[in-house]
Amino acid sequence: MPSKASPATEASAKPARPARVLSGIQPTGRFHWGNYFGAIRQYIELQADTSSAVPLQADREAFYFIADLHALTTVRDPERLRGLVHAAAVDLVALGLDPNRATLFVQSDVPEVAELMWLLMSVAPMGLLERCHAYKDKKLRGLPADAGLFTYPVLMSADILAYDATIVPVGEDQVQHIEVCRDLAGTFNHLYGEVFTLPQARLVESGARVPGIDGQKMSKSYENTLDVFEDLSAQKKKIMRITTDSRPMEEPKDPADDHLFALHALVASEPDRQEMAELYRRGGFGYGHVKKALVEAAAHFFAEARNRRAALEADPGCIEVILANGAVRARKQAAEVLARARQACGLARGTSAGRRS
Amino acid sequence: MPSKASPATEASAKPARPARVLSGIQPTGRFHWGNYFGAIRQYIELQADTSSAVPLQADREAFYFIADLHALTTVRDPERLRGLVHAAAVDLVALGLDPNRATLFVQSDVPEVAELMWLLMSVAPMGLLERCHAYKDKKLRGLPADAGLFTYPVLMSADILAYDATIVPVGEDQVQHIEVCRDLAGTFNHLYGEVFTLPQARLVESGARVPGIDGQKMSKSYENTLDVFEDLSAQKKKIMRITTDSRPMEEPKDPADDHLFALHALVASEPDRQEMAELYRRGGFGYGHVKKALVEAAAHFFAEARNRRAALEADPGCIEVILANGAVRARKQAAEVLARARQACGLARGTSAGRRS
Repeated sequence: MPSKASPATEASAKPARPARVLSGIQPTGRFHWGNYFGAIRQYIELQADTSSAVPLQADREAFYFIADLHALTTVRDPERLRGLVHAAAVDLVALGLDPNRATLFVQSDVPEVAELMWLLMSVAPMGLLERCHAYKDKKLRGLPADAGLFTYPVLMSADILAYDATIVPVGEDQVQHIEVCRDLAGTFNHLYGEVFTLPQARLVESGARVPGIDGQKMSKSYENTLDVFEDLSAQKKKIMRITTDSRPMEEPKDPADDHLFALHALVASEPDRQEMAELYRRGGFGYGHVKKALVEAAAHFFAEARNRRAALEADPGCIEVILANGAVRARKQAAEVLARARQACGLARGTSAGRRS
Repeated sequence: MPSKASPATEASAKPARPARVLSGIQPTGRFHWGNYFGAIRQYIELQADTSSAVPLQADREAFYFIADLHALTTVRDPERLRGLVHAAAVDLVALGLDPNRATLFVQSDVPEVAELMWLLMSVAPMGLLERCHAYKDKKLRGLPADAGLFTYPVLMSADILAYDATIVPVGEDQVQHIEVCRDLAGTFNHLYGEVFTLPQARLVESGARVPGIDGQKMSKSYENTLDVFEDLSAQKKKIMRITTDSRPMEEPKDPADDHLFALHALVASEPDRQEMAELYRRGGFGYGHVKKALVEAAAHFFAEARNRRAALEADPGCIEVILANGAVRARKQAAEVLARARQACGLARGTSAGRRS
């Protein structure tokens, strides 16, 4: 599906600069297969396209942040928030986000973003924010909303613009927010000169729609998830209990119809997946066989990630070093953009322009 | 008139700490007599009640900031904004704000405030902001509003809470915003523990309501102002052209009825004011006499301030040093409060808590 965003001509005007990918990930607890196959895998695949440890020489740089300022609007327990942020960082690195190729940091470790937010707030028409669906949906349902939800698209815009991001991979529900970001950046640039780089939304392939163990879409709220780092024996029990249809074993079946097949296809090797598809079409097998194959394929698929995760958990300081280094790199970039913006709109005065070196 | 705000019991619970006054002043151009006698004089009178250069040993500390982030929502010309901020600082120091007794700084020089703003935004109900009169009035008049106007009370709250301010001198139109600040601080404290000091509004005496040269309230929008630092000969011409009533010279007059008398009373010494009042009641004088007395008294009243201002203007670097020192002191305080708030709500993680030393 093509992105709805129009091309970011500003980015293409500077061909020497690598494309810069930015992605914010909410620390909402353990990632399930829906999160991973539906989004995170694609985000991680966009990390710097080089195997060297010098991402600045790549054609593509990537910044990933854990959105704790956003989480703050719903998580009111400080210990839980700290735990979620740490766990998200661990899980992302375990799943292949490489801190030597991409910059991984925590949103609130970059104070420049909050400053940028106010600059954008001062040019944000109320009507633009009132149309944003997260707030609008809540209002239509008659629920009380916080200003944090209402102004979140402005914070998200600051998050994107602070790093001169050119590509923001998003799900369909976030395309509107990228449009808001382009809108605010465009208004600011119109008023004060070319300060911000307009980003482009890149819609992530949701082709691989992930079914839950009950066949509905996998979602925490349906309680039908398989979690990426679930205890293996607990996951095995969960999989073995998946309800299936009652057609006789010998009857041929269409693999495209079956969620057990779909789950297996996500984690199986291509030959195994094809073999399983043939088995379905031929008939003469029990679902117990598919479940066992799924248990094994899942364990194999995430084995490397599980090992990395165990190593990271054994050394909690390691992830903090990664995040601290990421924050330094992110702040360097954000400080540049903020200095441009402050200068342009008249906040920086002679001596204060360099206050944050 | 008593303040409408309820007592800040939190402040009185820590008797060892000096009261802390905070006041934000908008850089809206040259101050007129209405600004000065109606507000700024009272603000400045609240500065540290000591003649020593060590305000921390006084019973009262004072923080004054020039609200450039607020001005940003209306002033779209960067050079003009820079000029207004500089001029406001010069004028305040010239008018007696003593940088050795109080902390004078520019709002945007304290990035911690923007971070605090988001923390407060996440606990600010939409309804609370929708009731704030600046936004509400604009909406009722059918005018389009920016999110900057709508969320300004949250920024103002961060400005107050960042410095553990206990006393905020305000005009009647700002009392509501202090209530919003207390509300947000109370909610945050309720959720996360005693992080913020609840401030108390101190309504400034607007007893000395300042008439303009046409007898209406002095206001820029009525074009009836006498400016504090107006060129003296221009001001003389303006005063000599003030229209007066046509009663005969010999008729006795009530001084309380006359705006010329009221203006003279603001700048005359007490004996001169009394003498003038007697003259009014006795009759047998021309308004030209009063105008001349007003010209002289005004020149005399602001002479010292004019001299200080001339000295400051001759050395523009001086005011920047004052503002830079002020920013250092203000940031030290704001960083303390921010660290408390980040720790309480779960943003600070072990290593990152001390990221901004």
